[in-house]
Amino acid sequence: MPTYVELGNDELAALKDRLEREHAEIKARGLSLNMARGKPAKAQLDLSMPLLETITTLEDCVSTDGTDCRNYGVVDGLPEAKALMASMLDDDPENVIVCGNASLNIMYDALARCWSFGTLGSTPWSKLETVRWICPVPGYDRHFGVTEAFGIEMIPVPMTDEGPDMGEVESIAAFDENVKGIWCVPKYSNPGGITYSDEVVRRLASMVCAADDFRIFWDNAYCVHHLFDDAAEQDQLLDIGHACVEAGNPDRYFKFASTSKVTFPGAGISALAASPANVVEIKKRMGVQTIGHDKLNQLRHVRFLKDAEGLAAHMAKHAAILRPKFELVNRKLEESLADVGGCSWSKPRGGYFVSFDAPESTAKRIVALAKEAGVTMTGAGATFPLKQDPRDSNIRIAPTLPPLEELDEAMDVFACCVKLAYAEHLLARRQA
Amino acid sequence: MPTYVELGNDELAALKDRLEREHAEIKARGLSLNMARGKPAKAQLDLSMPLLETITTLEDCVSTDGTDCRNYGVVDGLPEAKALMASMLDDDPENVIVCGNASLNIMYDALARCWSFGTLGSTPWSKLETVRWICPVPGYDRHFGVTEAFGIEMIPVPMTDEGPDMGEVESIAAFDENVKGIWCVPKYSNPGGITYSDEVVRRLASMVCAADDFRIFWDNAYCVHHLFDDAAEQDQLLDIGHACVEAGNPDRYFKFASTSKVTFPGAGISALAASPANVVEIKKRMGVQTIGHDKLNQLRHVRFLKDAEGLAAHMAKHAAILRPKFELVNRKLEESLADVGGCSWSKPRGGYFVSFDAPESTAKRIVALAKEAGVTMTGAGATFPLKQDPRDSNIRIAPTLPPLEELDEAMDVFACCVKLAYAEHLLARRQA
Repeated sequence: MPTYVELGNDELAALKDRLEREHAEIKARGLSLNMARGKPAKAQLDLSMPLLETITTLEDCVSTDGTDCRNYGVVDGLPEAKALMASMLDDDPENVIVCGNASLNIMYDALARCWSFGTLGSTPWSKLETVRWICPVPGYDRHFGVTEAFGIEMIPVPMTDEGPDMGEVESIAAFDENVKGIWCVPKYSNPGGITYSDEVVRRLASMVCAADDFRIFWDNAYCVHHLFDDAAEQDQLLDIGHACVEAGNPDRYFKFASTSKVTFPGAGISALAASPANVVEIKKRMGVQTIGHDKLNQLRHVRFLKDAEGLAAHMAKHAAILRPKFELVNRKLEESLADVGGCSWSKPRGGYFVSFDAPESTAKRIVALAKEAGVTMTGAGATFPLKQDPRDSNIRIAPTLPPLEELDEAMDVFACCVKLAYAEHLLARRQA
Repeated sequence: MPTYVELGNDELAALKDRLEREHAEIKARGLSLNMARGKPAKAQLDLSMPLLETITTLEDCVSTDGTDCRNYGVVDGLPEAKALMASMLDDDPENVIVCGNASLNIMYDALARCWSFGTLGSTPWSKLETVRWICPVPGYDRHFGVTEAFGIEMIPVPMTDEGPDMGEVESIAAFDENVKGIWCVPKYSNPGGITYSDEVVRRLASMVCAADDFRIFWDNAYCVHHLFDDAAEQDQLLDIGHACVEAGNPDRYFKFASTSKVTFPGAGISALAASPANVVEIKKRMGVQTIGHDKLNQLRHVRFLKDAEGLAAHMAKHAAILRPKFELVNRKLEESLADVGGCSWSKPRGGYFVSFDAPESTAKRIVALAKEAGVTMTGAGATFPLKQDPRDSNIRIAPTLPPLEELDEAMDVFACCVKLAYAEHLLARRQA
C-alpha cells in the first residue's frame, strides 16, 4: 500500500470522503471515552484497599520510635516512612524528607522557596530581572505550568532517545547565569517513555553552570513503574545524587517521588531527597510552613508496602493490569497506521504514556476531531511550554484509565482521526 | 500577707533562700514535665479513634457527588467537606477551599502567593523594598515565624480585653502602603484567650488601609474550642467576612480553620474561606501547586464529625477533659501567687492557653528556672515578634498535654520559679 503522500489527488480525496463518513458514524454513537490524563484505572486502585485497614487501633498509631502519630510534630517524616521512600528515591533515609500527598506540591514548594529566599545563600530568584529554565520537550504539562506561574522564561530542548539533547542543555546552562534549573522526568519520561542514559545523567551532574544555584528538578515519578517483571526488560537509571557528588556539584539536585501511582493518587505520600546541605535548609524553611505532614498516612503506607521488596511485588500487580493496555495501543497503531506514513510513537517499558508524533501541523486537528467523536485526549501542545508545539505534531496518549474494551474503541477512533486530519492536511496543502 | 515589694531586704533574702532550697529539692526529683506547646492530651486523641474506621470499603471511598476519592482531582475539596468546614468558618460552602492537614501551611501558602504573585492584580510583595505587618501581642509564635521568614518587618500592637488596640492598628494601616496585613487569632486568642469584640471586628473591616491589598489573616484556630457547654459561657465572634462586605471591603480577609485540635493534629484537615474573587484567584494558583489534597481524609472527617451539631457534641467531650486543667491552673496560681504581687493571668473560656504576665524582667529567668527543675515552658518572649518581649514578662502556659496529676505538679514547680525569680529580681534591683 502506498503511504498518504504517495497517493494522487483523486485517491486522497476519495479516502478523505470515506474517513469523513467513518468519523460521522463514530460521532453518531455518542461515545464518551477519556485518554487525557495519567490516571490509574479503578482496578489499580483496588489493589491498595488493604492499606485503608492498616491503621485503626491505638497500637497502630505508634511509630517505631514511639511517636504517637496522631499528635503534632515530625516535620521531616517518620523514620520508617523515610526508609520506604528512600528505596524509591535511591538514597539514604537521612537525605529524605517525607511530605504530604502530592509530589507536584513539593516541587512547586521547592521552586517557591528558591523564588522567595534563594538557596544556600543565593539571591532570591524573585529579585532577578529574568529567570530562565530548561524544559526538555515533549514534557510534563504540570511542570511547565509551575515555571509559567512564576513568570519564568522556558527554553525548550528536544529529547533524544537517551534524554535531553545534552549539547543544547550544556550550552544554555554554561553561558547564562539566569538559567536556574531544568525539569527532568528521568525514568520512563512523561510522555516519551525515555530513561536517561548514564552519560546524560553524568553530563547533567558535571556540566558547567553559570548559575551557582542551578538546580536539577529530578521528578522520578515512574521510578518503580515498570511494565515488565523481568529485570532485563526494566530500564535502569543512574542516581543523579551520586553523579552530582562525583562531579563535585553535590547540591545541584532535588529528587522527588510519590506513591500517587503506587497506592492512591488522591491519598498517597510524597518525598524529596537532596544533599545534606539542601536538606538542612529545606527542613529549616519547611518548619516555618508546617508542624508536620500527615503521619498516620505515612504509617498506612509503611504497613501496607513494607519495603522495597513489598513495593516491587505491588508494582508487578500494576504492571499486569497496565501491560495489556500498552500492548493494545501499540498493536492498534501498527494495524491502523502502518500504511499511512508520517506517524511515529513510543513503545515504552514503563511509565504512563505513549508519545505520538503525528504528521506536522495535524495534532490540534486530530485532538479536535477525537473530541467531536467523543474521545478526550490530552490537549495538543500540552507537552510543550506555554502549550506551543512548534510542529503541531506531538500528542500524549494516556491509556491507563479506560478498561481494555474502551481503550480498544478509543484507539479506533483516534486512528480514524489521525488519518482524516492527515488526508485533510495533504489535500489543503496541494490546493494552496 | 505583704506582697514581695513590701518586704524588707532581710525578709526578702530569707524568702529567696527558702525558695532556692525548694527549687533545689524539686531539681533533685528529676522531673520531666511539659507545658510548652498547645498539644492535645492522649485522652483527647482517643476521642477520635472511630474516625480511623470510617473509610475501609470501596463504597466508603465515594463522595456524595460520585467521585472516587482514591483517584486524582478536586483541587478545592469535596462538597461534603466544604459544608463541614464552612460550619467552622462561619461561611458558605462555595467560599471554602478544603486543604491538607495543617492550617499553618495554608496561611504560609496564602502569604507566599501574595509574595510571589501579589493578589487581585497588586504588585507582588517580593518586589517591594519593605513589607510591614501588624502583630497583636502577645500572639502566636508560629505566625510571627512566617512573617519573619519572608523578611517582613513586624509592628507589635498591644492586645486589649477586646482584641488588638484598634487606635494603633488604624493609625498604622492608614498611613503606610507597605503595611500589608495583620495576624489575628480572633477567638480565644493565642495566648490571651481574648475574643475580639464586635466593634473591633467592624473597625478591622472598615478601617482605611493605605494598601489596597491589605489582608487580614483571620486564624480562627479555636472557633469551636469552648471550655464550657452552656452557650451563655461561650464567647461569640462576629464574622469578619460579613463585616468586610458591609464595610465595602469584601476582599480584605482570608479566614482559616482546621480540625487539628478537633480530631488529630497529625492527620486532620484544614480549610480557608475568602471572598468569591479571592477564591477564584486562590483556586487558579492552587491548581498549579497541586492536583488535589487528600480526599480520603476529608471523607473520614465528614463521616466521623458529620455536621455542625456532630462537631459541637464532639467538642463538648474535649471540653470535659480540658476544663479541669484550666481550672487547676487558675486555682494553683491563685493559691500560690495571691500574696506575691506583680503577677496576672488570663482566665479564658476557650482555646488552649493561659497567658501569664510575670513581674517585669523576670520571664526569661522563670522559664530557665523551670527548665532546670524539669518543667518545659514555651520560651519566654515567644509570644512576641522576633521573640523580643520588651518587658520580659509574658509566659504562655499550655496546660492541655499533661494529665491532671502532672499538671498539678508542674504548676507547683512553676509557682516556685515565679516566686524565686521575683525575689532574685527585687533583691538585685535594691542592691544596684
